Amino acid sequence: MTYQQNKRFKLFSLNSNQKLATEMAELLGCELGKCSVSHFSDGEIQIHIEESVRGSEVYIVQSTSYPVNDNILELLIMIDALKRASAGIINVVIPYYGYGRQDRKARSREPITAKLVANLLETTGAGRILTMDLHTSQIQGFFDIPVEHLNGVPILGQYFQEKELEDIVIVAPHNGSIGRARKVANLLHAPIALIDKRRFEENAFETTSVVGNVEGKNAIIIDDLIDTGETIVLAAKTLAENGAKAIFAGCTHPVFTDKAIEKIEASPIKELVVTNTIELPSEKVISKIKTISVAPLLVEAIDRIHNEKAVSPLFE
Amino acid sequence: MTYQQNKRFKLFSLNSNQKLATEMAELLGCELGKCSVSHFSDGEIQIHIEESVRGSEVYIVQSTSYPVNDNILELLIMIDALKRASAGIINVVIPYYGYGRQDRKARSREPITAKLVANLLETTGAGRILTMDLHTSQIQGFFDIPVEHLNGVPILGQYFQEKELEDIVIVAPHNGSIGRARKVANLLHAPIALIDKRRFEENAFETTSVVGNVEGKNAIIIDDLIDTGETIVLAAKTLAENGAKAIFAGCTHPVFTDKAIEKIEASPIKELVVTNTIELPSEKVISKIKTISVAPLLVEAIDRIHNEKAVSPLFE
Amino acid sequence: MTYQQNKRFKLFSLNSNQKLATEMAELLGCELGKCSVSHFSDGEIQIHIEESVRGSEVYIVQSTSYPVNDNILELLIMIDALKRASAGIINVVIPYYGYGRQDRKARSREPITAKLVANLLETTGAGRILTMDLHTSQIQGFFDIPVEHLNGVPILGQYFQEKELEDIVIVAPHNGSIGRARKVANLLHAPIALIDKRRFEENAFETTSVVGNVEGKNAIIIDDLIDTGETIVLAAKTLAENGAKAIFAGCTHPVFTDKAIEKIEASPIKELVVTNTIELPSEKVISKIKTISVAPLLVEAIDRIHNEKAVSPLFE
Amino acid sequence: MTYQQNKRFKLFSLNSNQKLATEMAELLGCELGKCSVSHFSDGEIQIHIEESVRGSEVYIVQSTSYPVNDNILELLIMIDALKRASAGIINVVIPYYGYGRQDRKARSREPITAKLVANLLETTGAGRILTMDLHTSQIQGFFDIPVEHLNGVPILGQYFQEKELEDIVIVAPHNGSIGRARKVANLLHAPIALIDKRRFEENAFETTSVVGNVEGKNAIIIDDLIDTGETIVLAAKTLAENGAKAIFAGCTHPVFTDKAIEKIEASPIKELVVTNTIELPSEKVISKIKTISVAPLLVEAIDRIHNEKAVSPLFE
Amino acid sequence: MTYQQNKRFKLFSLNSNQKLATEMAELLGCELGKCSVSHFSDGEIQIHIEESVRGSEVYIVQSTSYPVNDNILELLIMIDALKRASAGIINVVIPYYGYGRQDRKARSREPITAKLVANLLETTGAGRILTMDLHTSQIQGFFDIPVEHLNGVPILGQYFQEKELEDIVIVAPHNGSIGRARKVANLLHAPIALIDKRRFEENAFETTSVVGNVEGKNAIIIDDLIDTGETIVLAAKTLAENGAKAIFAGCTHPVFTDKAIEKIEASPIKELVVTNTIELPSEKVISKIKTISVAPLLVEAIDRIHNEKAVSPLFE
Amino acid sequence: MTYQQNKRFKLFSLNSNQKLATEMAELLGCELGKCSVSHFSDGEIQIHIEESVRGSEVYIVQSTSYPVNDNILELLIMIDALKRASAGIINVVIPYYGYGRQDRKARSREPITAKLVANLLETTGAGRILTMDLHTSQIQGFFDIPVEHLNGVPILGQYFQEKELEDIVIVAPHNGSIGRARKVANLLHAPIALIDKRRFEENAFETTSVVGNVEGKNAIIIDDLIDTGETIVLAAKTLAENGAKAIFAGCTHPVFTDKAIEKIEASPIKELVVTNTIELPSEKVISKIKTISVAPLLVEAIDRIHNEKAVSPLFE
Repeated sequence: MTYQQNKRFKLFSLNSNQKLATEMAELLGCELGKCSVSHFSDGEIQIHIEESVRGSEVYIVQSTSYPVNDNILELLIMIDALKRASAGIINVVIPYYGYGRQDRKARSREPITAKLVANLLETTGAGRILTMDLHTSQIQGFFDIPVEHLNGVPILGQYFQEKELEDIVIVAPHNGSIGRARKVANLLHAPIALIDKRRFEENAFETTSVVGNVEGKNAIIIDDLIDTGETIVLAAKTLAENGAKAIFAGCTHPVFTDKAIEKIEASPIKELVVTNTIELPSEKVISKIKTISVAPLLVEAIDRIHNEKAVSPLFE
Repeated sequence: MTYQQNKRFKLFSLNSNQKLATEMAELLGCELGKCSVSHFSDGEIQIHIEESVRGSEVYIVQSTSYPVNDNILELLIMIDALKRASAGIINVVIPYYGYGRQDRKARSREPITAKLVANLLETTGAGRILTMDLHTSQIQGFFDIPVEHLNGVPILGQYFQEKELEDIVIVAPHNGSIGRARKVANLLHAPIALIDKRRFEENAFETTSVVGNVEGKNAIIIDDLIDTGETIVLAAKTLAENGAKAIFAGCTHPVFTDKAIEKIEASPIKELVVTNTIELPSEKVISKIKTISVAPLLVEAIDRIHNEKAVSPLFE
Repeated sequence: MTYQQNKRFKLFSLNSNQKLATEMAELLGCELGKCSVSHFSDGEIQIHIEESVRGSEVYIVQSTSYPVNDNILELLIMIDALKRASAGIINVVIPYYGYGRQDRKARSREPITAKLVANLLETTGAGRILTMDLHTSQIQGFFDIPVEHLNGVPILGQYFQEKELEDIVIVAPHNGSIGRARKVANLLHAPIALIDKRRFEENAFETTSVVGNVEGKNAIIIDDLIDTGETIVLAAKTLAENGAKAIFAGCTHPVFTDKAIEKIEASPIKELVVTNTIELPSEKVISKIKTISVAPLLVEAIDRIHNEKAVSPLFE
Repeated sequence: MTYQQNKRFKLFSLNSNQKLATEMAELLGCELGKCSVSHFSDGEIQIHIEESVRGSEVYIVQSTSYPVNDNILELLIMIDALKRASAGIINVVIPYYGYGRQDRKARSREPITAKLVANLLETTGAGRILTMDLHTSQIQGFFDIPVEHLNGVPILGQYFQEKELEDIVIVAPHNGSIGRARKVANLLHAPIALIDKRRFEENAFETTSVVGNVEGKNAIIIDDLIDTGETIVLAAKTLAENGAKAIFAGCTHPVFTDKAIEKIEASPIKELVVTNTIELPSEKVISKIKTISVAPLLVEAIDRIHNEKAVSPLFE
Repeated sequence: MTYQQNKRFKLFSLNSNQKLATEMAELLGCELGKCSVSHFSDGEIQIHIEESVRGSEVYIVQSTSYPVNDNILELLIMIDALKRASAGIINVVIPYYGYGRQDRKARSREPITAKLVANLLETTGAGRILTMDLHTSQIQGFFDIPVEHLNGVPILGQYFQEKELEDIVIVAPHNGSIGRARKVANLLHAPIALIDKRRFEENAFETTSVVGNVEGKNAIIIDDLIDTGETIVLAAKTLAENGAKAIFAGCTHPVFTDKAIEKIEASPIKELVVTNTIELPSEKVISKIKTISVAPLLVEAIDRIHNEKAVSPLFE
Repeated sequence: MTYQQNKRFKLFSLNSNQKLATEMAELLGCELGKCSVSHFSDGEIQIHIEESVRGSEVYIVQSTSYPVNDNILELLIMIDALKRASAGIINVVIPYYGYGRQDRKARSREPITAKLVANLLETTGAGRILTMDLHTSQIQGFFDIPVEHLNGVPILGQYFQEKELEDIVIVAPHNGSIGRARKVANLLHAPIALIDKRRFEENAFETTSVVGNVEGKNAIIIDDLIDTGETIVLAAKTLAENGAKAIFAGCTHPVFTDKAIEKIEASPIKELVVTNTIELPSEKVISKIKTISVAPLLVEAIDRIHNEKAVSPLFE
């Protein structure tokens, strides 16, 4: 790929994922676009794009991870600036799409914030979304612009394939991740199990049990993201109690809030594989956790988009 | 409720669910609005609203069931006619929302038809959607207008509660219905199980197995809809092979295409409960299938909307 | 023209006009784009585009003829799929634009379905419309995207010119076709006449008469479409009663519903010329009817659009 | 009607039709809303609404007649001011809708200005259009808001009914007015005729002839508007040459530009009936021309809209 | 005012201005609407409205002050939730409109964030904006919904009138506040002066001087907001150097970032009057600063809007 | 520049600035696009574009100066025609943007016409605005499309620099022009002064005074436009009364209505520099007034846009 000389192609990084963006630029062989993104003392963001973008094909890299609201506004303001500066198509690369869990009204009078954010992006001028492992794939339909939805399952699957574990069972730590677990299981030719939570009375505690057979097996818990770590650690404990031989875990998005790291460290999980869709601060890097870069996948997708080749081989 | 004298309230029925709409009108104590909806010999739909709707609060009852494209166009044309006739707010009652399974891009270069239909309804002038058991609840977020999403789980749950079966297990016939199964299980204080399909090689046949324990139990298969009947009948057979004592089933939307009825008749399913969100033609009415009317639920929702009371008690 | 090697140019056919589309592809020297368009047993349409369309200039051929609602939905779903697959400009070739007669409110509380369909196409993502002989040319203004409105009059006119009939009169079979009749008459240097219907009392039968002189003349009835055939056959009878020597007819769109074919066969019409904007099933092909292909005209228009040359020479 | 005390109902007049608006206010029993509409010396319009309109049902009376561009801008600016001042629904009463003849692309690369004006009105905030005798009724479909399209034919028809002329023929002075002529003819139980223009060679003069029988009859020429007067005067002359006994004429909108008045004065037209949708300056008032007020019709429509009764009885 | 019983009127407070909102509720005699607004540990905002808002007239109080991005997202998410919960008109009360200084492109390739925020509010569903002392009044035009723009000048003016100072001069601390200074000067019958900054060479320091006469006078510096305090403190110093007798200051919005408080404390400013459009944390409350509440003004405006009376008396 | 052969680049002139457009075409080395723009006798504008624009990059030159409403409609109708004729991007060059002074609600219930015009342009299909010296730079934010806002200050500044006047003061004739005065002052290394108007009682006359020192100096009054001339002439008189040595003036847009020319002629202004953003009729050309052409600046901007180079060097 020779993006070095290409004045009509621009890759910009905002504040959430500067390492990933830098890695992507290196793989593409181009420099990151020059822009200053500063926060005033009153919190207002000021963006100034420092090179001409007139007519260019622009890619902005920004996960809407913590601090999510600042990151969303940075992204919207950047899109506004690009639009007014006569940029050509504005491609928004969102390795981790925050607010993805607010994708429906779970109770009355709740917002559907994942849709709201989609509307804000479209209204402001995004022309295409490039993202990975949305919390539910229906979020694609929240947009009316093209969404390239990359799949992290093969990355995680391949990692565990290379470990050559025997007698595997893939475990969904809650109802919502069973589809994802099945996909990893298909790659590894494995059965699945499910951590089931039931509540008998209105205010009673939940009871957690395993549906399926895990005894004596190498259990691999699969989820799209780990936030406070409670769900996955509870799943790991339940698996341990139900006789699993060893417990591994894999997820795409390491949100890791609160004491997630401590909980994981203290849990029966032997190894956890994540990707760098969210940039981990150094204090969250522990030996149990392996990080795989998604830069090659994103760069391959950008290259295919740029050359108007099908992106589909990356989905399947 | 006294809707009889209310000139500003209009309930119209299109062609998909005339029995249900008539039952609703009776419960509300009003007459159905007068309109002619005819199809010309070239297939074009002609609609003429035969009474003034100026400023009225209008409800249109139309499932987008078979013939789905005609039913969608009927609905859009009716909304267009109402809008041009200066109707007040146009509420669209869609007991069964067709195309709900096309809610994401499962493969590259597929449409997201459930979103397309949402866009068409909003663009044409729908002001509120009142629907039941969407295929995935994220479809709510395909709209930017209020969606009242009624829940059929309590109807099915209550039916089985009254049967006072013992030693129950609620079974999800595929990954996508596990959340729904869990909800019914919560009502019945029961465990869940899952029918799992795995495929080891690219072109190999799928293998079906049960995840969870069903032996000697009364199994109740729960799904949102039954289309060709293949999935539910395969689930029933698998349950039978795994030693289930008796097999019941419940779903909200009886799509029943192809030889669904024959397959169900021939299957180990002892009893199947459905609702009338889709009107069953008489040849599809067999003794194994019980139908519960959703008219009281829809009417209760309309009454709450009309009186600007919270609809939420009906969701929870 | 060399479209064979052009990867950025795609011509797709949906279900309404496959023969015409195939003929167009042959004239252009390209292959039809690969896509599967299937209808499930519940009537839902599933579309899968089987080759990359990223950035391509796409043309879709689809008349919104019978079954009109299925054909409209096919078209909208295809546009949705193309838009989400990052197609470049989406050109919609609609040889026959259905619902064109619902282009105004003839009575209170009627829809304007021709506008509704225009809105649906624009909202979904059509970028240009290429159509022929709209029922009224004002329908162009229902769109805010470019509409290339091709004219079938020269095709019909030339056909009759080549017959070298003498003493011709061009007849408008109803008020709405008088402009079209005048245009054909200009080509043939002929006078016009009009079939006039009057009704004296509210519920009385209509009386039909000829306005203008047809006695002893070769009368050519001109209309944009023939639907049930009643109007044109009544016109032909009235002309015969008024002494016309021989009666010919020409129209662009052979809708031909009900017993149109039988009526035409039994009528005094000697010869009827139509085009293939609507594909005639073999049972509707009778010797009295000549069909002229519009493929060369459509292909010429596409070629001019593709090469950014004026399409206007085709209009005038 | 008691609009006098109604603070929530406002009728405003802009500059085009102050007499008509005043007459309407008198019939409604209300005062015209207070607003200043001035033109600065550089031509810019300044509008200031001088009473609160918050939440009110507002009607603005403005024909888009000469000076048409100023009148359109006045109307748009007034709507903008009302919208920003939190008016309730904004009803726009356009007795004469200018630019109606630019309702399609007659040649390549022409605008469709009648649609443009509709878009401008809708974008700016018009909520309903109340208009009369659009040049083509398809213009209704240029809007997606309700259009109440009043019909001037009964006004003209009744006038001629009361004259009790015998042996009448209704004449369309060109192709486009034949539908209107037929409607008047239905009221008067009369036959129709058509003034036909044909051109044999590209640059040859047009030849005008009468299609239909007018000899010895009382001919009534019917059109929607008279602009330069050329068409109607040519029609009158042709009728005279073809032996018409007496020639009358009727049209809704007296545009009367150039030397229209002189031409009509000098023509064989015995009497011409128009309405006051366009305000005639005193120098254009001649004895041959009778003016009928549309104020009662407009006021009846407003009253029905205000009271949410069907306006349809006024259409039919 | 009796808002206590009014179930159709709801006043909600988000996180920025809870004291002000509480004061407003007390003045109105109603309770604040119940809703929970929480921030998850990953920064995502979760909002749940805890009472029915169906059909209600809703007011949300939220300044977009620090933390500005969180506050904007809170507001947008709340609007989304209200819209989906079928609220009636959604009125957004923004006492301080953040990002107001980014109201134009000062340099190439900058965003216009004040417009972006306006677009986000409108797109999401705001129906009316109630705000105070926008940085430039042109920001009203960034919206196409009604904006009630309240004026803080009389509040500041009245405060200084009551001090009965003699020999006053009103000082604009920079070019942009001269209009505001003139308005206060009109109230106090005083002359104005201007702090002028000039720069002679590209990279030279700015020179500050006073334009106008301030010697021996009571100078009152007027601005719309104080951010870091640099501008106003520099103005005060310049006034002192130019012989002003005593230096007062007034502004509407106390943004007060960085060391603003320390700088003001140390400056020659004798007294600074601000309002509570931005809630001051206790550590920023010093004796030199007087705070006047805008609650009575906002409540008066809401009462007028609610009763559909003119708000204009509050502007002038 | 070689635009002569470029078939894909089109520069059209409408009626307001034909001389300027012709000069621009000469500088670019291209011909003006062929189109006929005529006004019918009823005031309706008819536009016909006489060469193909399919896919072209189009520039339209039109100031919205007197007659402003006709000029706005001409522009909108031209955009509509271009859009329907499949033009590529439509760039609108508006050297003088009329209605710029109506950029906020100065009083209640006023429109914001500058925003309305922006909305009309965007809705109709403008893709980019190229304009000069907007009345307030916030008007840029009224658009969501790119606005290239050229700056006339250097043109005026350079003119006065070349005069090498000594002891200069730049004077803002009213509050709104102080920013512009400061920018010119920066170029000339000069101090500024302000003409201040105060009004002590509600209905009293305004008193005008000078803020700042002008005695014995060469005063240069700077404004964006001169309309009736009252403001600038009053400023000049006040300066003369306050001892200014000589009085010069400069503004970008010579609106010159009413008796502006006579007033300027009779005033103490020695020399007035304007540009040709508005075409002056010959009777308004007097010796005191120098006109500088903006054609080179506009052409430079167009050339940069066409070649996708940064336009920013022209702003700064």
